[in-house]
Amino acid sequence: MRRAEFEVQDPRRIEEVLRTSEIGHLAFNGPDGWPRITPLNFVYDGRILWHGAVGGERFECLRRNPKATFSAISFQAYLPSYFTSEDSAMGASVAFQSVMVRGFCEIIEDLNEKCAVLNRLMEKYQPEGGYKIITPEEPLYQKVLKGTAVYALIPEQITGKFKLAQNKTEADRKRIISRLRERGSPMDLKVAEAIQKTLGG
Amino acid sequence: MRRAEFEVQDPRRIEEVLRTSEIGHLAFNGPDGWPRITPLNFVYDGRILWHGAVGGERFECLRRNPKATFSAISFQAYLPSYFTSEDSAMGASVAFQSVMVRGFCEIIEDLNEKCAVLNRLMEKYQPEGGYKIITPEEPLYQKVLKGTAVYALIPEQITGKFKLAQNKTEADRKRIISRLRERGSPMDLKVAEAIQKTLGG
Repeated sequence: MRRAEFEVQDPRRIEEVLRTSEIGHLAFNGPDGWPRITPLNFVYDGRILWHGAVGGERFECLRRNPKATFSAISFQAYLPSYFTSEDSAMGASVAFQSVMVRGFCEIIEDLNEKCAVLNRLMEKYQPEGGYKIITPEEPLYQKVLKGTAVYALIPEQITGKFKLAQNKTEADRKRIISRLRERGSPMDLKVAEAIQKTLGG
Repeated sequence: MRRAEFEVQDPRRIEEVLRTSEIGHLAFNGPDGWPRITPLNFVYDGRILWHGAVGGERFECLRRNPKATFSAISFQAYLPSYFTSEDSAMGASVAFQSVMVRGFCEIIEDLNEKCAVLNRLMEKYQPEGGYKIITPEEPLYQKVLKGTAVYALIPEQITGKFKLAQNKTEADRKRIISRLRERGSPMDLKVAEAIQKTLGG
């Protein structure tokens, strides 16, 4: 990371991003030398877990070359330049909390483990329930489980980049916090609170 | 793309995603063989344009190996399994409109062109104004322009993947549309409208 002030190492803050982010992106390589990228619904349990189809380009690429880098963002808010400057556009910025995970992808073959991951994905995205638990024995799922690939990205390196106006003066950060509170969307209030924390408040 | 029914080729629909998406992700390669990924604020004018710092890892990687793949999503909504099934989790899905752009990255050095791109970024993210137009002559910007790198991804290939329940029966799509309208968030209504279009409605 070019600017050390944005780097976050606290594992709890990193985990919070990985547990609350709704969508991640995975970068990996094709045999043709072109990088690939794919948006993912995922769940985190120390590994990044997701599912897809058996077969297809992603499946084949990751089988050949399991090196992948995953990115998730827990929130993002645009900070207009006029929050901190009357005339210069250069104060315009974005506040966000992002985490990058680099590691090797594995394809999970064990049927019980596959079901466990699929149930965790359901719990994350559909916490209200409304479905039968996924098991290898349940007739509803026997056929479809065969065509479903479950992946795990095993982290080699996890990096947090939280850009929360740490490069701005304390006075500017306070200005940004009060402008965000005025703008007042639920996202603005979350971001204001996160910037507040950088002030030790 | 594994499933042809999700592929979109209409350039107007692809452009709409690239013009309305707020955040994109870029995948590229490092000299160490690990893929890199970075979230971007961007603007589209036939090229994908963004800015960053002169120097740092992204700058060096893209200078060595300009092959990159960009992804943008214009919306995303989770479709719970119970929208279409009483007991099977397998109907759970996500509706989204995504575009992938593969191409070569160029670093724009010409000062006037750099300023033109930065102004377009400002117009996209801060359409309400509140700043002085960026020019090479304006004293406010002379110093900071030198440290700012402006990038263009020149497309070699653009692919649209619109997942709008095209793999479901007409009856299920109608069910999903009415459930989304009941759930009723602004995003749900947009997604319902997009699925409606797949029915020729």
